[in-house]
Amino acid sequence: MSDTREQILEQIKEQGELVRQLKASKESKEKLPLAPSSEGRAMSTSVGQQLKAQQQQQLQEQQQQQQQQMHKIDEEVSRLLALKAKLGGDAAPANQKFTLKTPKGTRDYAPQQMTLRQGVLDKIVQVFKRHGGEAIDTPVFELKEVLTGKYGEDSKLIYDLKDQGGEILSMRYDLTVPLARYLAMNKISSIKRYHIAKVYRRDNPAMTRGRYREFYQCDFDIAGTYDPMLADAECVKIVAEVLDTLDIGDYVIKLNHRQLLDGMFEACGVPPNNFRAICSAVDKLDKSPWAEVRKEMVEEKGLDGATADRIGEYVRLSGGAELVEQLLADPKLKAVPNAVKGLEGMQLLLKYCSLFGLEQRVSFDLSLARGLDYYTGVIYEGVLKAEPGSTGSPVKTLQNGDQAPEQGGTVGSVAGGGRYDNLVGMFDPRGKAVPCVGVSIGVERIFSVLEAKFAASKVKLRTNDVEVYVASAHKGLHEQRLRVLNQLWDAGIKAEHSYKVNPKLLVQLQHCEEHQIPLAIVLGDAELAQGIVKLREVRTRQESNVTLAELPAEIRRRLQE
Amino acid sequence: MSDTREQILEQIKEQGELVRQLKASKESKEKLPLAPSSEGRAMSTSVGQQLKAQQQQQLQEQQQQQQQQMHKIDEEVSRLLALKAKLGGDAAPANQKFTLKTPKGTRDYAPQQMTLRQGVLDKIVQVFKRHGGEAIDTPVFELKEVLTGKYGEDSKLIYDLKDQGGEILSMRYDLTVPLARYLAMNKISSIKRYHIAKVYRRDNPAMTRGRYREFYQCDFDIAGTYDPMLADAECVKIVAEVLDTLDIGDYVIKLNHRQLLDGMFEACGVPPNNFRAICSAVDKLDKSPWAEVRKEMVEEKGLDGATADRIGEYVRLSGGAELVEQLLADPKLKAVPNAVKGLEGMQLLLKYCSLFGLEQRVSFDLSLARGLDYYTGVIYEGVLKAEPGSTGSPVKTLQNGDQAPEQGGTVGSVAGGGRYDNLVGMFDPRGKAVPCVGVSIGVERIFSVLEAKFAASKVKLRTNDVEVYVASAHKGLHEQRLRVLNQLWDAGIKAEHSYKVNPKLLVQLQHCEEHQIPLAIVLGDAELAQGIVKLREVRTRQESNVTLAELPAEIRRRLQE
Repeated sequence: MSDTREQILEQIKEQGELVRQLKASKESKEKLPLAPSSEGRAMSTSVGQQLKAQQQQQLQEQQQQQQQQMHKIDEEVSRLLALKAKLGGDAAPANQKFTLKTPKGTRDYAPQQMTLRQGVLDKIVQVFKRHGGEAIDTPVFELKEVLTGKYGEDSKLIYDLKDQGGEILSMRYDLTVPLARYLAMNKISSIKRYHIAKVYRRDNPAMTRGRYREFYQCDFDIAGTYDPMLADAECVKIVAEVLDTLDIGDYVIKLNHRQLLDGMFEACGVPPNNFRAICSAVDKLDKSPWAEVRKEMVEEKGLDGATADRIGEYVRLSGGAELVEQLLADPKLKAVPNAVKGLEGMQLLLKYCSLFGLEQRVSFDLSLARGLDYYTGVIYEGVLKAEPGSTGSPVKTLQNGDQAPEQGGTVGSVAGGGRYDNLVGMFDPRGKAVPCVGVSIGVERIFSVLEAKFAASKVKLRTNDVEVYVASAHKGLHEQRLRVLNQLWDAGIKAEHSYKVNPKLLVQLQHCEEHQIPLAIVLGDAELAQGIVKLREVRTRQESNVTLAELPAEIRRRLQE
Repeated sequence: MSDTREQILEQIKEQGELVRQLKASKESKEKLPLAPSSEGRAMSTSVGQQLKAQQQQQLQEQQQQQQQQMHKIDEEVSRLLALKAKLGGDAAPANQKFTLKTPKGTRDYAPQQMTLRQGVLDKIVQVFKRHGGEAIDTPVFELKEVLTGKYGEDSKLIYDLKDQGGEILSMRYDLTVPLARYLAMNKISSIKRYHIAKVYRRDNPAMTRGRYREFYQCDFDIAGTYDPMLADAECVKIVAEVLDTLDIGDYVIKLNHRQLLDGMFEACGVPPNNFRAICSAVDKLDKSPWAEVRKEMVEEKGLDGATADRIGEYVRLSGGAELVEQLLADPKLKAVPNAVKGLEGMQLLLKYCSLFGLEQRVSFDLSLARGLDYYTGVIYEGVLKAEPGSTGSPVKTLQNGDQAPEQGGTVGSVAGGGRYDNLVGMFDPRGKAVPCVGVSIGVERIFSVLEAKFAASKVKLRTNDVEVYVASAHKGLHEQRLRVLNQLWDAGIKAEHSYKVNPKLLVQLQHCEEHQIPLAIVLGDAELAQGIVKLREVRTRQESNVTLAELPAEIRRRLQE
């Protein structure tokens, strides 16, 4: 018996050894002279056509072999997993003890929080509908391939589902890539859609600041081939309307343009293949001081120090139309077509924003970069300003790049978006592009601001809408209660009672007061014999007699008062 | 080079051989005489205390070894996967072609479907709130351990997330287990909550009949220690109100009781450890004829043929209060305390249902079993009846057990639930129970019935709420349009325009007619010079002049007409 066990262990050990050998041989292969890398790109410029063709053939063979190997590994993995299952690895023992919690970075919403959340979402939907938005919904997971190659450095944060046979799936990371997939799949070339749903990121959670691994996004996007900046400006307007209607404090909407950023990088001497990496470094300026960002550019991303310093001069700038004028006259920038196009775009956007009454709300800000790869034009971000005298909450906007790292209790960015003209084309078999611009409201951060405000106010939110409580004055009336309740429900009145056959009257009336139920009906044999009941106003404790026949109408009249 | 590749392949082959050996040794271990099974239960009755203790020690050691082995297998699996990743298995090549689709068993909701869906959900929420429900929400995934051991045979349908380091997670399978986890975790002993959210099952999808792998559940549950059947009857009432308000055709609510089922099995001579398996066979009676179910009981579940036939006599019965009386007098049943308790419960439930005006809606039905393990008391299911003359849609209710297998286009069960008094206790460290009863509305099936109805009616649903379209009569007016739009939005009016600088008037007016927008404003230089615009009623095409200052008020007045 014990021999058999040891035999298994021995075999597993041997197997481990084999895997190490396998790895070693893979590594030794990688070091072979002249063996092309798996992409085969490094070679193609340095050798003649003949050699190149031979090598490509060799490469194809190698790739085939590699695929076979990977297939074999898959087979081994599934065999091992099947074995593990057989050994009982997936069956939980009865009475297993484990910590009772939600997964890391997620939370439950209790009724109070749901009431708050529903209030916020309703207001946001109202704004989206005011601009003609239609709702769509997509599955919470997508084929993994749909998400691959869309998020740059952030792809590592995608949740994958386990391979249980069938398709390989990942949880949606945002609502934008699913929208692009939806448009390409259904060959839709124009839509104004909103989508409110949860997305998933295996990020480092900071729950007190509203950063979760499962969180709501509220997106509004305008897809279609239109004239410049008209749809873009409307998205900025929507950010302003949402932040106004939620009344969560003073804010600024930072604006920038990816084409201008690229042009500025070009003007500063950044090599084109380094644009996205440097852009992602600039994106960190809202959390890190310039010195740190510069360090990342120079030490991690291999940028020349002088080039970084030139970038540093630009990303300190923010302002309005006058800044656009100034930069259009900048000798370095005006030589770069991308920079000029970006600046002209900004000029038009700022004009439309001013027609929308947003002059005091927007700020053209060269430090705004946005993390995601797919933006191609205008980008924007709504940021809460620190309220005078408030403790900690929202982020302090110092001079760009001199900002202190995010403090506990700060909130910062609560909305963001931009133009992404090439994303839909990535899904279309013939590459047909559908230009898009959109905005995403960061409601979790807004919830956490409102929750804090709310907790401070000490108001108790009603979490149900019950209008009438049906009570018994004495024992033996539960069947009468059911009859009256049935009458009220059938009349569309929100009503409840005690699920005890003979509850105490005091307990029933206390329930009404605790739950702020406005009206109570008190049943008693004496009144019922005359076909009447007592209707009680819970707040004033005033009671009056009402006939059973008139009850629904009388309740409606009282509720309207 | 090629040698290295072959070497790898060879090693993988050897490794496969080892896995087979490993499996073989595991199997030989299983066949060893007197080796206790991993549960160690089979032994404990047949041997003395001394031997038992020794064996238990031996068992513990074996379990430890087994855990070590499983740990080693995990290590090997992750090594193999890492190797695979290194070989490039997880990186998608650029320009990869793949079928553009949603994951199997899932779908997108287009604006038309969303409008329909939102209408249904709103109506259901209205019913839930009428009964005092409060909303909660939980994460879309749970720790895998939370779901383990709750769903019986259906556990294989749970979606697991990939182990990416950290916690092992699974997608929620229903909203009931998360509720139980929520109650235990927060030590809540009474709540009346509703929860509307998507759940996930790796089931065989049948999308035309509304069976998906990702689907909405709308749950209402009453938790708390109350008097018998008061909360249970209210849940049945809620099913009736939901199906009435949705107006999807005639229905019946089947009622049964798990205690009665168990008592009936006992009376028929089913061994107690076979109750759940036989119950799950009875559950198939809504889809399979009795002959097939009997075959499953006898051939797969080892039931005696005569016992099965006795069950067959009972599960054919359905009726009302008179059937309860008849069964209370049944000599076999009245000897079994469980059966008597179940029948007395049914008696009380039917009385309360009749006080709620449901006498014609409910049917006490001994073939109703419900698949899930966790029910402990009353169970119910709302089933759509075939409409006279309708083709295919909803299921035909023949005599129980004689029913034809589900046909294309049939719908059947659209709501279900029951009492589960022990589920919360499974999560409480001290096993403290919170009795619960609840109902789940199968909205996907309801959506598919309504979608079919709707498609047949050929009515075009409005998918946006735009009230006014702002049009230009001629070129050069786009900035004026933005000013007017801004005025309307700020006044809370739902308005949109063309995102072209100079759109054609005809195209703009056609847009209004296609999208059923009630009003249009037409801007022209001549009118603007006088501070007025044309307000057009899209349906009648009547136009009148309105001053810009009066525009919002005049639009409101027109919309109220």
